[in-house]
Amino acid sequence: MDFAGGTVVHINAGVAALVAALVLGRRKGFPETAMPPHNLTMTVAGACMLWVGWFGFNAGSALAANGTAGMTMLVTHIGAAAASLTWMFCEWIRFGKPSVLGIVTGMVAGLGTITPASGFVGPLGALMIGVTAGLACFFATNFMKRTLHVDDSLDVFPVHGVGGMIGTLLTGVFAATTLGGVGFAEGVTMGKQVTTQLTGIFATVAWCGIVTFILLKLIDVTQGLRVTIEQETEGLDTVLHNETGYNL
Amino acid sequence: MDFAGGTVVHINAGVAALVAALVLGRRKGFPETAMPPHNLTMTVAGACMLWVGWFGFNAGSALAANGTAGMTMLVTHIGAAAASLTWMFCEWIRFGKPSVLGIVTGMVAGLGTITPASGFVGPLGALMIGVTAGLACFFATNFMKRTLHVDDSLDVFPVHGVGGMIGTLLTGVFAATTLGGVGFAEGVTMGKQVTTQLTGIFATVAWCGIVTFILLKLIDVTQGLRVTIEQETEGLDTVLHNETGYNL
Amino acid sequence: MDFAGGTVVHINAGVAALVAALVLGRRKGFPETAMPPHNLTMTVAGACMLWVGWFGFNAGSALAANGTAGMTMLVTHIGAAAASLTWMFCEWIRFGKPSVLGIVTGMVAGLGTITPASGFVGPLGALMIGVTAGLACFFATNFMKRTLHVDDSLDVFPVHGVGGMIGTLLTGVFAATTLGGVGFAEGVTMGKQVTTQLTGIFATVAWCGIVTFILLKLIDVTQGLRVTIEQETEGLDTVLHNETGYNL
Repeated sequence: MDFAGGTVVHINAGVAALVAALVLGRRKGFPETAMPPHNLTMTVAGACMLWVGWFGFNAGSALAANGTAGMTMLVTHIGAAAASLTWMFCEWIRFGKPSVLGIVTGMVAGLGTITPASGFVGPLGALMIGVTAGLACFFATNFMKRTLHVDDSLDVFPVHGVGGMIGTLLTGVFAATTLGGVGFAEGVTMGKQVTTQLTGIFATVAWCGIVTFILLKLIDVTQGLRVTIEQETEGLDTVLHNETGYNL
Repeated sequence: MDFAGGTVVHINAGVAALVAALVLGRRKGFPETAMPPHNLTMTVAGACMLWVGWFGFNAGSALAANGTAGMTMLVTHIGAAAASLTWMFCEWIRFGKPSVLGIVTGMVAGLGTITPASGFVGPLGALMIGVTAGLACFFATNFMKRTLHVDDSLDVFPVHGVGGMIGTLLTGVFAATTLGGVGFAEGVTMGKQVTTQLTGIFATVAWCGIVTFILLKLIDVTQGLRVTIEQETEGLDTVLHNETGYNL
Repeated sequence: MDFAGGTVVHINAGVAALVAALVLGRRKGFPETAMPPHNLTMTVAGACMLWVGWFGFNAGSALAANGTAGMTMLVTHIGAAAASLTWMFCEWIRFGKPSVLGIVTGMVAGLGTITPASGFVGPLGALMIGVTAGLACFFATNFMKRTLHVDDSLDVFPVHGVGGMIGTLLTGVFAATTLGGVGFAEGVTMGKQVTTQLTGIFATVAWCGIVTFILLKLIDVTQGLRVTIEQETEGLDTVLHNETGYNL
């Protein structure tokens, strides 16, 4: 059960990002130097558009303008809002101050996590999935960045990867009619569904991890993967595209 | 008669903002220092999204994809455009130069004002309401800011509050079939409808004003409402959220 | 055959821009000084919104939510994507580096070119039209800017004008059922349709060119067309609107 692409989109993206981050190595200066987004107003504006666009992505997967699409839209909203607030409170408690970057990262975590579940769960399931997403992705992000020092610059693995796995797994739980979901197929128990979900997750992680690694190595030997340290210092905008973001 | 929330959204927001501005007091440096938006390109981009989104807000209140929703969308457009141009001309005549900030502020005034009327009036009513909104909100903004020196930083009261009141009132006029509207309920005259609209306005102003004041005082005594003068000088982004908008 | 306004919107805009650029003359410093967009993040964000909005513009011209609207949306997407990639490769080959400004300019070229054809051609036609748009508009832009030194600051003529002409012409080709299109009217051959399309193009160019010239001259003698060199140096934002884009 994967309504709008928890495995094919989010776990895939997350695992590919992790493999790429490990193969490519860290950016110069990471993790000693803080690397905040250069323009938070664009970050927030983009996050808002993402939230709106995600309604099309999830509810559109119903392939009809019906009740399923409507409920998908509602649970997408609940999941994103719940994860967003959860991340904010985690940050507030752990670091003393909530940040807007944390709020929008939590939102993306919630959206990615609710995606596979969106057509199968009810409002209660969405709330539980959202809170779980906020908590798990917050800790995963900090663990990857601060403990393991993996330079996944947009936190794609801890947000999309971990979120996609949790969402795919919890779909097998909150799709149960007793928890407000649409129920499982004839004769399928929750235990059996969760096993199927886990199989899907492991298959996606293995396939994506191996194929991404092969593709990256192939690019590395044919045309090279990483710019030189001089180019990195000068900046890729100038070196590769001969343009700069701002000419104020 | 309040189609999409002139009282519950706009008068409410405007009155709450006014009470909050008065209870909180002025920002340091107001009104001696000019405080223009820090990034007008974002202001204009946001205003454009607001205009588009408002179609969903107003026409969506028809709760159906029918002729009422279509007419609501049309009158929303006319109201916003008329108020936008009116504000621009007011500014041009009064200060010698039209500004894009004035144009988008006029647009918001028009959108807020047409909101309660949007499902009840025709194109002519929308045009009249838009022009009235542009004129009244322009003068209200200047009066609040320049004469009374109230530091309502986003002009919420003169734009949403005054706009919401005018829109709610004029709905009782331009809903008349003779003026292109959908007409009043069986046996209701324009005079009677206008009286009902006025009652709604006063009830909203009184309720919102009192409740907002109580809530603000409650927050003030429990956790404090305003940052210290040092924190204000340093900037709330840094002090409260430990982040800055731009790291160019 | 002009589905969503290749003549009335794009050729018109392009020719009017060209006449205006010639009548107004070049900006101070052109072509010696490079004049890149001051904020490429806004350029890209705006281009993305344009792409999405264009679906409404083209598919909405079907005036119904039916199969024609669906196919219009698809060919609009294909045309934009094909032109975008074509422009990128042209730039890459010619100047050694692809740029994001080139990618979004190619996108606009593709969107403008597919517009007249959008309700009449199939996916194959859209691909051919998109590639042609990318190639032709890329060379037209460089020819206008680097060879003729016409200061059409947003490349409106080479992108919208040339694109609109090519799209209007090719509609007469790719609308053929043998090329995946919806076919011509009863008894009309491709040759006859192409002649009709050419007549439309020439009529639009002549009419728009002459009327724009007359209007510009009329404005010139009544209130003047161009600011003084001092005003241009100081900047129109300050001189005409008394505001600045950024107060960071």
